[in-house]
Amino acid sequence: MTRYVRFAAGSGSAYGILEGETVRQIRGGLLDSPTEAGTTHKLAGLKMLAPCQPGKIVAVGRNYRSHLGNRTHPQHPEIFYKPLSSLQDPGGPIVIPPDATEVHYEGELVLVMGQRVKDVSKENALAAIFGATCGNDVTERNWQYGEGKDVQWWRAKGSDTFAPVGPVVVTGLNYDDLLLQTRLNGEVVQKERTADFIFDCATMVSWISRWVTLMPGDLVFTGTPGATRRLAPGDAVEVEIEGIGVLRNPVS
Amino acid sequence: MTRYVRFAAGSGSAYGILEGETVRQIRGGLLDSPTEAGTTHKLAGLKMLAPCQPGKIVAVGRNYRSHLGNRTHPQHPEIFYKPLSSLQDPGGPIVIPPDATEVHYEGELVLVMGQRVKDVSKENALAAIFGATCGNDVTERNWQYGEGKDVQWWRAKGSDTFAPVGPVVVTGLNYDDLLLQTRLNGEVVQKERTADFIFDCATMVSWISRWVTLMPGDLVFTGTPGATRRLAPGDAVEVEIEGIGVLRNPVS
Repeated sequence: MTRYVRFAAGSGSAYGILEGETVRQIRGGLLDSPTEAGTTHKLAGLKMLAPCQPGKIVAVGRNYRSHLGNRTHPQHPEIFYKPLSSLQDPGGPIVIPPDATEVHYEGELVLVMGQRVKDVSKENALAAIFGATCGNDVTERNWQYGEGKDVQWWRAKGSDTFAPVGPVVVTGLNYDDLLLQTRLNGEVVQKERTADFIFDCATMVSWISRWVTLMPGDLVFTGTPGATRRLAPGDAVEVEIEGIGVLRNPVS
Repeated sequence: MTRYVRFAAGSGSAYGILEGETVRQIRGGLLDSPTEAGTTHKLAGLKMLAPCQPGKIVAVGRNYRSHLGNRTHPQHPEIFYKPLSSLQDPGGPIVIPPDATEVHYEGELVLVMGQRVKDVSKENALAAIFGATCGNDVTERNWQYGEGKDVQWWRAKGSDTFAPVGPVVVTGLNYDDLLLQTRLNGEVVQKERTADFIFDCATMVSWISRWVTLMPGDLVFTGTPGATRRLAPGDAVEVEIEGIGVLRNPVS
């Protein structure tokens, strides 16, 4: 089990391995064979960034029994995309677009792919996952389902800053049984184990890869549990996942 | 007006400026200030690649009067995403997924962004467009609208090879008045001027950028005219746009 972070360094970024409050800088990217750069940093002095640089962001909807309630369970994973421009760093603001009326948090486990996979079996899918981090699949409900509904969820799910992720990518967890909690201004508003998934991580990855090749570094948001609420400027949202850490973002 | 191509070179790729049948290789990427590398190639000897390396692919639906027919015109552009993994090179096969039943061509003008823009006005939007190329917004109708309809168009529009683009990016055209033709096995099956757009290029780019930052190199598919038909293995599809060229892909 290794804990990776990415942080601002000079005009760019660097990766490191987090141990306690110390970050040991590594050479190259998250998916290169890490070699120590010989430099260590105190975590508190670093500006954390989204912990990887994906080529695409794939997301699964309607994937917790507790989120669906009495609604019909899907027959297979239901997938959509979030654009790279929606990525936000830990600590960076979730910006409510001027004409949005119903922006909600969605605390989620996010998988980071480690291998290129096409049409991978469920049996082999887990080995293609590099690690996992915390994510917030921020969603505007009016553009998703309301009077202002678009044909597709492009801005409902894809507006700038609607995909905060981080701060740590952790390898070697049992992704299908982790406690996920979302806090809104300190109050716990989502609390569920990923064991409540309708489709487990191997099934999601296998299903996506039947049609869409997943590449190293690609992110897979795995769905949100329970109910969600509206965000307002001044709020703070935290997504905490057992064994990973806390992703905190203010709302502006 | 300059004509750019990208081609296989060694284990990677290189960009060049196309003049007649000669490609003058340039250093760096499409959006770097091009400097001549001092090398020329005969076009016929090169393997053409998708002519740029975008960070995302944004697409506009329902954007030709002739495609909508009697259906209600949208009040604003309707947007969706195609993943980078759906990109296909000129000449590369459109691969029909094993369980697809209704894969259609959609010949389209594709814009290549030249500047980072957020909330750009219609007046300033055209200046942010670097150039344009030919594209095929390949679509599986059953997953889009049929009995096998998904919640979102992720595989209907995003399966591997469903976004052929190229072969040339041309700058300085009037993107809003070009003849577009699609040929299926030599027969003209789509023929319309982009002047039939419901929303012109400046309006599309401005609309998207209100919520989603467009980055240099990003692609914008602009919608398809008229009617479309089913593709079968062994077919060949050509998308020809006035002043740009012909994008040809076999179907397998």
